[in-house]
Amino acid sequence: MPTVTEVPERLLLGSGPSPVPERILKALSHPTVGHLDPAFGAIQDDVAAMLRATMKTDNKVTFPLSATGSGGMQAMVDTLIAPGDRVVVGVHGAFGARMADALGRAGADVVKVDQEWGRAIPVERLLEALDDRTRALFVVHGETSTGVAQPLHGLSEAIRMRDGLFLVDCVTSLAGHTLDLDAAGVDAAFSGTQKCLNVPPGLAPFTLGDRALARLRRRSWYFDMQAMVDYWFADGPRAYHHTAPINMVYALHEGLRIVREEGLDARWARHARAHDALRRALRVLGFERLAPDGEQLSSLLAVRVPASIDEAAVRGALLKDDGIEVSGGLGPLAGQAWRIGVMGEGARPEPQERLVRAVARRVAASDEDAAVRALEEAWA
Amino acid sequence: MPTVTEVPERLLLGSGPSPVPERILKALSHPTVGHLDPAFGAIQDDVAAMLRATMKTDNKVTFPLSATGSGGMQAMVDTLIAPGDRVVVGVHGAFGARMADALGRAGADVVKVDQEWGRAIPVERLLEALDDRTRALFVVHGETSTGVAQPLHGLSEAIRMRDGLFLVDCVTSLAGHTLDLDAAGVDAAFSGTQKCLNVPPGLAPFTLGDRALARLRRRSWYFDMQAMVDYWFADGPRAYHHTAPINMVYALHEGLRIVREEGLDARWARHARAHDALRRALRVLGFERLAPDGEQLSSLLAVRVPASIDEAAVRGALLKDDGIEVSGGLGPLAGQAWRIGVMGEGARPEPQERLVRAVARRVAASDEDAAVRALEEAWA
Repeated sequence: MPTVTEVPERLLLGSGPSPVPERILKALSHPTVGHLDPAFGAIQDDVAAMLRATMKTDNKVTFPLSATGSGGMQAMVDTLIAPGDRVVVGVHGAFGARMADALGRAGADVVKVDQEWGRAIPVERLLEALDDRTRALFVVHGETSTGVAQPLHGLSEAIRMRDGLFLVDCVTSLAGHTLDLDAAGVDAAFSGTQKCLNVPPGLAPFTLGDRALARLRRRSWYFDMQAMVDYWFADGPRAYHHTAPINMVYALHEGLRIVREEGLDARWARHARAHDALRRALRVLGFERLAPDGEQLSSLLAVRVPASIDEAAVRGALLKDDGIEVSGGLGPLAGQAWRIGVMGEGARPEPQERLVRAVARRVAASDEDAAVRALEEAWA
Repeated sequence: MPTVTEVPERLLLGSGPSPVPERILKALSHPTVGHLDPAFGAIQDDVAAMLRATMKTDNKVTFPLSATGSGGMQAMVDTLIAPGDRVVVGVHGAFGARMADALGRAGADVVKVDQEWGRAIPVERLLEALDDRTRALFVVHGETSTGVAQPLHGLSEAIRMRDGLFLVDCVTSLAGHTLDLDAAGVDAAFSGTQKCLNVPPGLAPFTLGDRALARLRRRSWYFDMQAMVDYWFADGPRAYHHTAPINMVYALHEGLRIVREEGLDARWARHARAHDALRRALRVLGFERLAPDGEQLSSLLAVRVPASIDEAAVRGALLKDDGIEVSGGLGPLAGQAWRIGVMGEGARPEPQERLVRAVARRVAASDEDAAVRALEEAWA
């Protein structure tokens, strides 16, 4: 039986996981301690504080849930939505559709506001779908399937007026695209660790405000948020619920320290610049961005692959021969688009140049030098 | 903000997590690759094969769920139990009670078969509780709260005759106590990584046989077992469901390789011997095992703490001053018992001697040398 050391190194420029820096891998492999050890408790307190800063929220209940980002979505459904609840869901890509599916399974009365994949949903259309029976409004801030950022402002007031909750998926946007959860009036949000935080997959950063806390359901044992509050934010001794994924929390701690060192504004600006640079370079090679100007998500560049290119074959060769991962399209974009991560350490000139050169060499009659020049000029 | 490197090293001899060997920490921190990368696919296939061997099952659908052991419990409930289902649950400790709670939240008609904490449940009592409406029988094989192993034989036939499922929690027993899931006729079981596998917490090894697969419910999006089958066991390309916790799967791969190297029979025998050795040594110091002979769980030694000892103070000092973690009692045993892990690398003479010496020095008028001699003789 071979060991995992035979798994080759990859440059992860797909939709996630993203490149994990050595510092984070080192934290990940720090010796495990117990989940009730006071030394781990101090790490938990740090993680909660840094996560609040990164999410821009004062919510006390801000912590990493013991599941991947999609587990965060499930926890949101299980803990905040009751059967029969009318929930308005913006669907402008695979992750809005996924939430609509999850809500439907839980017995919610799901009202979808559909929008063409590759465009943001006009705020007015979401507002029109709200009525006095609406218990929640859900949108995906960073659509990983299309590279579109959904505007959040102007929504919170309307749903709060109806005593409903404003729920957000910020899996791909957190720490890579401008996002201020409290300013946007978000009541609950989930994220993932394997995107702009550059931490391996396995945890779902989660935040719950007071209005959400007042509505907690305890249907699920594992996703019982009150039990997590009693573990993460106990006034006295932490109450055992389940065994926290200790080493993953270590890794997140280091990922959040890196965000803190750079500063959130600088990090957002770097991601925006990296997105623009890569877009310009790939345009030279014939790849056009799906999202129109002003609707793009800094952390994910989704491009239409020129018809002259066998996208699956080129994508396969990039992985196999160049060791570079980019992601294919999902749903209606399968076979037509690439999704390229611009996430944390992936949002730097060096990995981007490596990708641009590798793509140029696989695209007939392309100008590698011109593409790299476009990248360099945008970064200069 | 301090780094996680300031978290002290501990000797983990509590109820889990258990001591994580360097080999596993190294695998954990191998560079992350994508969840659809063929190189990761090969690791998945290895993990499934080694997990089948460790669980002693031919079930194709045997894989690590992306959540901790308790998440495995929740997935079992969400995927196999419908509201109104009559489910018989053996409750002889905290983890049977937890399952009864989780089932009740999901709307099941829960029939508890209660037994004194510290004893196994007589098989006849479980059989008596079954009737023709019973859809499932659940028992905890290794009760982590009491250190008792529940006999599994003689149950499967009775529940299958009624077309119900036989469901088992093997969190603490897997790879540490004799367990043959197929021979016991188990239809579905979950485990955890942080016990006898010595892998950090974060995954739930899970297995589903054909009778369970025929009953899958798809209420939960995250715990949708059919979707996991399409990712882990696809005939063609693996279908994306959620992003697997890549590095945790690496660590599990290495943990299972270690089990394979030792051999399951030898590993079970070593755990039984280690349990007996530690029991003898602690008895010299006045600690008596809860479980009667023949009912003990090799991988967890639960002992009654002598009334002369302030258990919380001594346990705290062991952690703080000696760097050794043991666990306190749960529920009715709080303040009265210690739960000592005999798990994987913790089931060896060296860590046990370190614990015995540390305890002896904190117990007035105890005979450290006699206790260590008892340990050595049992290991000789």
